[in-house]
Amino acid sequence: MKNIYQEALKIHKKNKGKIKIEAILPVKDKHTLSLLYTPGVAQACREIVKNKKLSYDLTWRGKTIAIISDGSAVLGLGNIGPEAALPVIEGKALLLKEFAGINGVPIVINTQNPSEIIQFVKNIAPSFAGINLEDIKSPECFQIEENLQDIGIPVFHDDQHGTAIVVAAALKNAAKVVNKPYGSLQVVVVGAGAAGLATTRMLLGLNCSADTCEIIPGHSRIKDVIVVDRHGALYSGRENQNIYKQAIAGISNKQKLQGSLSEIIKGADAVIGVSGPNLISKDMVKSMAKDAIVFAMANPIPEIMPQDAKEAGATIVASGRSDFQNQINNALVFPGIFLAVTKGRLTTITQEMKDIASDTLADLIKNPTPTNIIPDIFYPHLAEHLASAMLKVKTRI
Amino acid sequence: MKNIYQEALKIHKKNKGKIKIEAILPVKDKHTLSLLYTPGVAQACREIVKNKKLSYDLTWRGKTIAIISDGSAVLGLGNIGPEAALPVIEGKALLLKEFAGINGVPIVINTQNPSEIIQFVKNIAPSFAGINLEDIKSPECFQIEENLQDIGIPVFHDDQHGTAIVVAAALKNAAKVVNKPYGSLQVVVVGAGAAGLATTRMLLGLNCSADTCEIIPGHSRIKDVIVVDRHGALYSGRENQNIYKQAIAGISNKQKLQGSLSEIIKGADAVIGVSGPNLISKDMVKSMAKDAIVFAMANPIPEIMPQDAKEAGATIVASGRSDFQNQINNALVFPGIFLAVTKGRLTTITQEMKDIASDTLADLIKNPTPTNIIPDIFYPHLAEHLASAMLKVKTRI
Repeated sequence: MKNIYQEALKIHKKNKGKIKIEAILPVKDKHTLSLLYTPGVAQACREIVKNKKLSYDLTWRGKTIAIISDGSAVLGLGNIGPEAALPVIEGKALLLKEFAGINGVPIVINTQNPSEIIQFVKNIAPSFAGINLEDIKSPECFQIEENLQDIGIPVFHDDQHGTAIVVAAALKNAAKVVNKPYGSLQVVVVGAGAAGLATTRMLLGLNCSADTCEIIPGHSRIKDVIVVDRHGALYSGRENQNIYKQAIAGISNKQKLQGSLSEIIKGADAVIGVSGPNLISKDMVKSMAKDAIVFAMANPIPEIMPQDAKEAGATIVASGRSDFQNQINNALVFPGIFLAVTKGRLTTITQEMKDIASDTLADLIKNPTPTNIIPDIFYPHLAEHLASAMLKVKTRI
Repeated sequence: MKNIYQEALKIHKKNKGKIKIEAILPVKDKHTLSLLYTPGVAQACREIVKNKKLSYDLTWRGKTIAIISDGSAVLGLGNIGPEAALPVIEGKALLLKEFAGINGVPIVINTQNPSEIIQFVKNIAPSFAGINLEDIKSPECFQIEENLQDIGIPVFHDDQHGTAIVVAAALKNAAKVVNKPYGSLQVVVVGAGAAGLATTRMLLGLNCSADTCEIIPGHSRIKDVIVVDRHGALYSGRENQNIYKQAIAGISNKQKLQGSLSEIIKGADAVIGVSGPNLISKDMVKSMAKDAIVFAMANPIPEIMPQDAKEAGATIVASGRSDFQNQINNALVFPGIFLAVTKGRLTTITQEMKDIASDTLADLIKNPTPTNIIPDIFYPHLAEHLASAMLKVKTRI
């Protein structure tokens, strides 16, 4: 790892950034200038005055996404502030370009107040076709995203939904490999932050807002999930639960099991770690059901190293890292999601679209095996596959 | 003009935008991905946590400017809102790239409330090396800019200072051509908006904040200016004057002349129009002093057409348009200003730097003539000339 870090720092220093703005048309003479700038540009303005939607066609807006973070929950580094979050946010812009061919503008902001963030995003909306919220801490991220669903362009918190979509896809294929029905899996989710709660919502087929959750009809779903945070299992009425955890607690963990992870994980078919380093021991894996599925996705140091999980008897092991097999990373889906947003001029991203994205991702692996449950990030035209599947849904609704 | 508009609309429709994001390094394999994105990117984050200024070196921030507008005063089109302002703002980003080689990000915002705009700019500051405010109406633009001078990065309202810098440069060379001392010119400014008041401040060598102005020592200056708005000349104590007009009125128009433009312009050496179409008549120009200087910069239709001004006896005529001689356009300076901002890591743009930019621009014309008082916008390395002159000042202070 140390060498990767040194090499990464060197490449960041040398290039002073990972993206740049380029002119689509060069401005070489006064005539071009008079078309692209004053006075000619006035005609594009006049057309948009008549119809605001033309801003998608007459400017770069239709192909451009803002990636916005307050720097409050960056990778495993925590609340490091906006400036220090910028390399990650710029990295996402790079991936949007490289994997989906669309423009991403990295924007880090100088406030961690949810109301101010909501106002900021509302104010910046006319500049972009969509907003990717990123690295915003929980539970604030839930409140922020909920209050931005009616602003005319989609707002998508990737740490929640990107993760949930990929985990659900990987879990479906893992179930096939171990030959257990997806709907009957006993699943433990470790971590009740943005990724943990969103993944649980997705696995249970829930639609939640603040303190209420309801089951989405027709959603392929797992019968029960138990979420564990630092205080143990979430259950209805537990202390130390914010309203978002309480809402999940009320609809998951049907037997109201209490206890620590080492107690809860016993007999589980799958454990999904979206928490912190080294929280899952070999003994815990040994206590799981036969053909255990272990997704240990904390970055850069997972809940349990893949080799240890295998030694403890797990049949399927996945992590978030690119140097191990079965990489579960939201970079697999957010380029496709925003390609759909720009191609389809979406105003919102529905739960049905997220389900389709997850199913499409899973189906790209025709014959899942223990070391191949999820497509590689360089799978050819991955973003196009996801976007076109999502847009088929759009025409249905 | 009609053909220009039609051709401009066509080129906007065809290209769907004038700029795009490009990757500096392609992401072709997992190794590159692990350097530019997770896990390697974490090292860039860790370095910035230790020293926020490294965000200029390890991301695109050091070469990137935000161009921000609320769409309240766009060209001669007025308050057309954020979406319709986007083509102009994107055009400025194009010019930043083409003339200065730096990244400009067009951002239009969904509020025209000065306090909200101030908060928005403060919040977005950590993403950029500087902010170009654009097309924000007067008098709000003064309040907004004043409240953003201590946010750690320069905030520059181009409609004010860009225009003032170019007008002062052109006027200095015009004075040489007609062989009158610059400091003794009798000048009338038509229009008391952003450009009019900022130009007057510059010509009089004033430093103003809200309702007070003081003379900057050592600034080359004109003895007196009279500003005229729709109610006639500004003078101390006049009604219908906001605090910014009142501040200028208190220090200009020393004889407290009252009356309409046609009365005030009599005997003037120069008239500077930054107002609206057709406000200056041929008779008005005829009433000016010998060797009259007429800058008619309303866009796209000037206060008086250049041909008419010449027929009425003006010796020097300039406009804002690229299809006439002597084009006075702030596109001559803003690329150089922001090149200085990025190269010099400026935290503010001082009045001395603006003066130097103006003098440098004027001095690029070695032998001014009636049809050549200001460099062409395609003058080779214009931005570099301005930036290096400005940065020499920086080292002096």
